[in-house]
Formats: sequence, structure tokens, C-alpha cells
Amino acid sequence: MPDTASMVNAFDVETADTLDPELRRIVERRSRLLGPAYKLFYRNPVRIVRAEGVHLYDADGQAYLDAYNNVPSVGHCHPRVVEAIARQAATLNTHTRYANDLLLDYAERLLATFPAEIGHVMFTCTGSEAVDLALRIARFRTGGEGTIITANAYHGVTTAAAEISPSLGPAVPLGRMVWAVAPPTEGAEGQDATGGFAARVRRAIADMSRHGVKLAAFIADSLFSSDGIRPDPAGFLRPVVDAVHDAGGLYIADEVQPGFARTGDAMWGFQRHAIVPDLVVMGKPMGNGMPIAGVAARPEAVEEFGRKIRYFNTFGGNSVCVAAAAAVLDVIEAEGLADNARAVGRYLLGTLAAIAEDTPRIGAVRGSGLYAGLDVVHPGTGEPDGLAAMDVVNGLRERRVLISATGPDGNILKIRPPLPFARQHVDQLAAALSETLRTAF
Amino acid sequence: MPDTASMVNAFDVETADTLDPELRRIVERRSRLLGPAYKLFYRNPVRIVRAEGVHLYDADGQAYLDAYNNVPSVGHCHPRVVEAIARQAATLNTHTRYANDLLLDYAERLLATFPAEIGHVMFTCTGSEAVDLALRIARFRTGGEGTIITANAYHGVTTAAAEISPSLGPAVPLGRMVWAVAPPTEGAEGQDATGGFAARVRRAIADMSRHGVKLAAFIADSLFSSDGIRPDPAGFLRPVVDAVHDAGGLYIADEVQPGFARTGDAMWGFQRHAIVPDLVVMGKPMGNGMPIAGVAARPEAVEEFGRKIRYFNTFGGNSVCVAAAAAVLDVIEAEGLADNARAVGRYLLGTLAAIAEDTPRIGAVRGSGLYAGLDVVHPGTGEPDGLAAMDVVNGLRERRVLISATGPDGNILKIRPPLPFARQHVDQLAAALSETLRTAF
Repeated sequence: MPDTASMVNAFDVETADTLDPELRRIVERRSRLLGPAYKLFYRNPVRIVRAEGVHLYDADGQAYLDAYNNVPSVGHCHPRVVEAIARQAATLNTHTRYANDLLLDYAERLLATFPAEIGHVMFTCTGSEAVDLALRIARFRTGGEGTIITANAYHGVTTAAAEISPSLGPAVPLGRMVWAVAPPTEGAEGQDATGGFAARVRRAIADMSRHGVKLAAFIADSLFSSDGIRPDPAGFLRPVVDAVHDAGGLYIADEVQPGFARTGDAMWGFQRHAIVPDLVVMGKPMGNGMPIAGVAARPEAVEEFGRKIRYFNTFGGNSVCVAAAAAVLDVIEAEGLADNARAVGRYLLGTLAAIAEDTPRIGAVRGSGLYAGLDVVHPGTGEPDGLAAMDVVNGLRERRVLISATGPDGNILKIRPPLPFARQHVDQLAAALSETLRTAF
Repeated sequence: MPDTASMVNAFDVETADTLDPELRRIVERRSRLLGPAYKLFYRNPVRIVRAEGVHLYDADGQAYLDAYNNVPSVGHCHPRVVEAIARQAATLNTHTRYANDLLLDYAERLLATFPAEIGHVMFTCTGSEAVDLALRIARFRTGGEGTIITANAYHGVTTAAAEISPSLGPAVPLGRMVWAVAPPTEGAEGQDATGGFAARVRRAIADMSRHGVKLAAFIADSLFSSDGIRPDPAGFLRPVVDAVHDAGGLYIADEVQPGFARTGDAMWGFQRHAIVPDLVVMGKPMGNGMPIAGVAARPEAVEEFGRKIRYFNTFGGNSVCVAAAAAVLDVIEAEGLADNARAVGRYLLGTLAAIAEDTPRIGAVRGSGLYAGLDVVHPGTGEPDGLAAMDVVNGLRERRVLISATGPDGNILKIRPPLPFARQHVDQLAAALSETLRTAF
């Protein structure tokens, strides 16, 4: 087994001698300076020196189509975001203990994108910190310690977030008060439309209670990204909220992946399911690469926590990151990126479905907006084929199209480009994918 | 009791009707949008709109001398840092899974400031995340769960960091595997020169062992900031390292406060004690306000963790924050800020000691470099007087000089300006402090 600590699409440093000298030098420097925890993507890692829009450029000036990065969500180095960062960095960059309207103006705009029940927002720097804070709030509010997650969830890398992230692999134990349930759409087709997932959550709550553990929270990525991307049928989360509330727990929507218009259907992934969570965690695309994240909440969920426990995150809500985040909202509006995600996302899914029809190597195609998953399978049995998925990911990389893979078997192609992705980019991706599938197998 | 959740120098929102209309409006917006967890500084909060060097400016153009903020450590909006941020934001801002020399160049420079035994560095966004990661590493490395801290320690706000931060107050319980010891210099004068603190650590280790708990780590701020600023006598941490290693634990130096030349004596606070920790946590001043932090480590401490557990922090080591951090090192070198911290710090301590001699309201004066603490006491008994300290802090604020207070009783004035602080700024601070002491009591 390559020494890649359960990570899908990790470069194996044992193969460094196959690389060109410049890359080999960088790999050696990384091992020496950063240690073994740092992994590169791809069998032949890419050396990126600049970026713009939906393209990354390597040291030789070669362009790579970015069909993977959701962090630079409004496009790499978007001039409006760059200008906001530069201006604010030259004016003021401070914390939240001086009075200033910048943070409040942003908070007000951000909260306006949520249902009316969500009234407060608190700022952190990373999604991990936001998840961690949401867990602290839920445990304080409920007096419970039990947490329910999905079987291959990923929620972050702090101690508390890692304990609810089985996708980190067997070397990171789940917390003792953590119950994992199979994700939606496992089993018979359409099961979740009739409540299969909610039934599993109710059984987990009952088992937890039988062990004398009180429920604090259910948490799920509203798109179930690391569980293989499970958007449909929209609405299947409604009975889950009821089950969680019946047990006195809080529903935490992890919107780090679907949030900020990714799904095209709505600003937030939970809105596709017509639910209102108690706590909403957001991160990655919030500042187009600047470290800003947060927790939005029903006021009653954070009221006592806020009164009894001060929460101060030195860099959380700092002026420069907030300026970047405000520019992101500007660009989403000005460029109609939610509409683009919906329209181009539909075109993307249709294009991918047509490719899947042509090959027994691709099973189901799922997605919502500019987030698509394709199951790579054994052509005979239809079983997940993670190694074949890696061949596809690396075949695309050689054609300078960047994607990755996900799911418990690492066999699900993950296509998640910056939001200004256009039809012509879908066509380029499709051509490269078709060619890769033709030549790889 | 004002509803300020154990926070020293928090504005009490119940007194909002005493403020001018603009501030009242901001306080109302904060409560409405951010909820009750967010606290402002000072009885009469300051409304800051821009900053430069060692000055903050309010909406009326009034200048405030900043004798408190250690985050904009090379000076607010330093042009060299601003330029680095703007340039990098326009070029590339990405994560660590593409090959790129920018991060490695910085890592190499940063590691060169450490003793040779410290060979790797891993990047996070906040000091809290760095502490949390150091705890994960220590627990994985040792197989232990026990952690030793000081009685009024502060290490951060993630679940795991808050569990070792008694200064967050009684509503945040310490972890069940956490042992707290009295900080250095408690008790008889000079006790720690003869090993009093190390003896307490050894007793805690023995008690932990008696309860069947294995030591993972000892962690302390190398300046003991929240324990009241305890720099001397330098060297008292040496026997603590031995005690921790004898028990198989790791020594974690929390350098979020003393690091990056603050003490004047050295780049890192632990160097004043001539020790080499196993893990070093750094944060606040690292990027002059940009969210960048990290863990530096002896390679053997992180080797197995890194091989078995991937650690990926999406924004950790992002290009823009790294560019800012590299510019911070540039400025520290180019402007001789370590020398300045030593020289002006000595002048500051001498000036404060002279003021203390003139009034029974100030007990001991302690400090190292540009970090000073003054005990505010009852003039008769010499007991800590937190309310009087608040009068001083707010009296200085009315004179447009910004400091705060710390320690378990909130009675220790905390003076911790940006590193370009000059003698003339010390003189201005001293004049305002003398006048405040004369008129407040």
C-alpha cells in the first residue's frame, strides 16, 4: 500500500524518483521542512505559480482547467476581491473588540441570505473551527455529549472535528460519544424519499439513549460530499430534523461544501431540503481563499452560550478577511453566479450523463449545480473501483484538467469547479474525460 | 456583576445608554447580528476606522497610542506587508497540495530561527488550531491523554484548547484529563530559581499517574501572560522539561505571546530559558494580522503522526498569508525590531518601575522586551485590586492610550505594544499613566 494515510489522490513520496528534477527538489524540500503529514495531489504533482479565473498556470506557463477548487469560488484572483483585500490591508486590519461597522455590514448582508429564523452569525477562520464551535454550542445548549454523523463524514481537523470525521481513516478514532449512520440513498433506489435515512438516524438516537448518552447534535454536509455526493431527492432531510428535535438535539448543517451558491438551487444546501437548521457551519468559499468561516445560528441556540462563555477568535472576523468576504457576495450577485451554477451545472450533469451512457466504467452520475460525482465501477460487476478512478483523475491531470475523487472507496470522481465555469469549460472537461476513458481502459 | 462572562476589560452592554448615539447604534447592531458572545473593550468602547504604525484612529480622526496589540506586531498596515499581501492576492492564493516554493522558502527561513533540534513546521490559521494540533500530536505520540497546564492558562477556543484554558472562566470546564499547577513565582521570592515550579509539575505528574492517567504533554506560554506575566528568573523552565521527559510526555511551548522577537532577548520565549521544546506553537504576530499560525516540532515528535494521519488545513499555509508572514520576517530583520524590543523594552520597564515607586497603588513591575505587567494593588494591604486596574485601563483609554489587564484577578496592567514602539511612545504612555494614577485615586 502506498504510504498516503488513507488519502484519495495523494502523491506517494516513495515514487519521487519518477519525477522531473524540479518537482523532485520540491518533494524533497517538503519532506525535509514540513514533515510527512503533507501530501501532494496526483501521481505527477502539479507545480502551480499563478492563477486566474478558472485556470491555474504552472512554471512553464501551461494552463490547467480548474474543475476542482471550490475555495477560489468566484474565480482565482478575482480583481474585485483582490482590490478589496489590498484596500483594507492598507487601511485597517483589526479584531472585533473595537467598534466598527465593516464587520456588521457584512454580517447583516450574510444573514439576509438565510431564512428569518437564523439571526446571529459568529466568525472563525476555518471550517474546522466553525464545526468545533458549533459542537461546543450544541453540547452547552443541550447538556448532551452524543453526536450523530454519516459513515464517511468529513468535518475538519481540530480534535473535536476529527472525532466526527471517519473519512480521515482508521488512525483517527471516532469519539466515544459519536454514532455513525449509513448515508442517504444506500440500499434500494428511492429509499430515502420514504425516510430510510431518517429511520437510521432515529435508530441511532434510540441506541445512544439506551447507552445513557444524551443527544447534542446531528451534523451533516447538506450535499454529503465525502459520502459520495448525495443531493437527491431534495427533501429527505426534513424528517431527520424532526427526529433530532424530538430527541432534544440540535441540527447542524455543514455548508462548507454546498454553501455560497454552489448548488445553483439556493445560496445554502439545506434550503434545497426546505429545512431550517439550528446551527449552520460555513467556510471554504466564503472569502475566496482568505481564511474566514463562521457559524450562523438560531438566536435561542446560542443565547446562553454567548452570555456565559465569551468566544473570542483573534483573527475571526478580521477586517481584511471580512472585506474579501463582502467582495465575494458582491461578485456572486454582480455576475449572477448562482444562476450560472444552476445553468452550467445542468449542462455539466447532462454532458456527464451522456459520457456515462457510452461506457460501463461509469455507473451513476449525481450532482447539484457545479458539484458533480461520477461512480467509477468495475465494468462487469458494477462494484466501486477506486484504482480505476485514480487512473481517470491522473489521466485528466496529464490533459491539464484538474479534478479529484471522493467516497469511502475513493471511486467517485469529484467535479467541483470555481463558479464562473462556463459551457466551453464543460466541453473541454468532457473531451478530456472521454479521451481518458477511451485510452485508460 | 456585569454580564461580561469573566472577561477582563469587557464593555457591559447593560450600560449602553451612557454611550454616544453612534456607539450605541453599533452596540445594538452587534447584539442583534453577532449575539451575546461578542464583547467590546472598555467602559467607553473605541470606534476605530484606520491604523498606521503604533496608532489607531477613530471616526473623528483622533489618534490612539496602541500599547496593547501584539498582532500587528511590525506596526499596523506596514507598507511592506500590505504590498506583499496585495501582490500575492493578485498572483496566486492556493493550498498546499500543489507544488510551490513560496511556502517552502518561508518554512526554511522560519525554521532557521529555531534551535537545530526543531526541524519541521506545520501550518494552521490560528493559534487555537496550532494548540489543538500540538495536543493531537502529543497524544498520538505518547499514547497518553493527561495534560498539565498552569492555573490561569489561556491556550485557545477550540474544544480541546478551551479544555486547557482555565482563564475562560467557570462556565468552561477543564478537561477531565487536565491537571493545573500554580504558576511560577507564586509563594516566596526566588522560589522558582530553586525549582518550586518544577516541583509542582512533578507532583502533578505523580498525582496523574496515581489516577492511572498517562502524561501526554505539559504546555505553557513561555511568558505566562494570562498567569500575570512571569518571565524571571530565566532558566526556571529547564527542570520542568526534565520532569516532563522523565514521565514520557512532550513539552509544548506556547509562543503565541512571546514569539517573533517580542521579548527582545530572543526570537522565541523558550530560548530565554535555554530549553528546546518538543513542539512549539506560534500564532498572533506571525502574519501581522493575517490568519496564519503553526506548530514547529522536533521531527521525531511528528514522524509517526505525519505518516499515519494526514493533516490538511485548507487555508493553512495559503499563499497570501505566507507572503504576509515572510514580509513580517523581512521587517523584523530590516528594522531591527528585536533590538528595538530589547532596548525600548528596558526603557519601558525602567520608566514603569519609577512610576511604581511613586505610588502604593502599583506593586511589582515585571516584563521582558515589549511585554510588561504591573500589579495594581490595594494601597494598604497589597492585595490584588481588579477594579482599580479597570479604572487605570479606562483612564488611559480616555487619554487615548490603549492597554488592558490580565491575571486571575484582572489586576495586572498588560502593556504589549507593536514592536516599533519608540521611547517617545513610552514617554507618552508614562505621562498618561502618571496622570491617571494621580486623578483616579
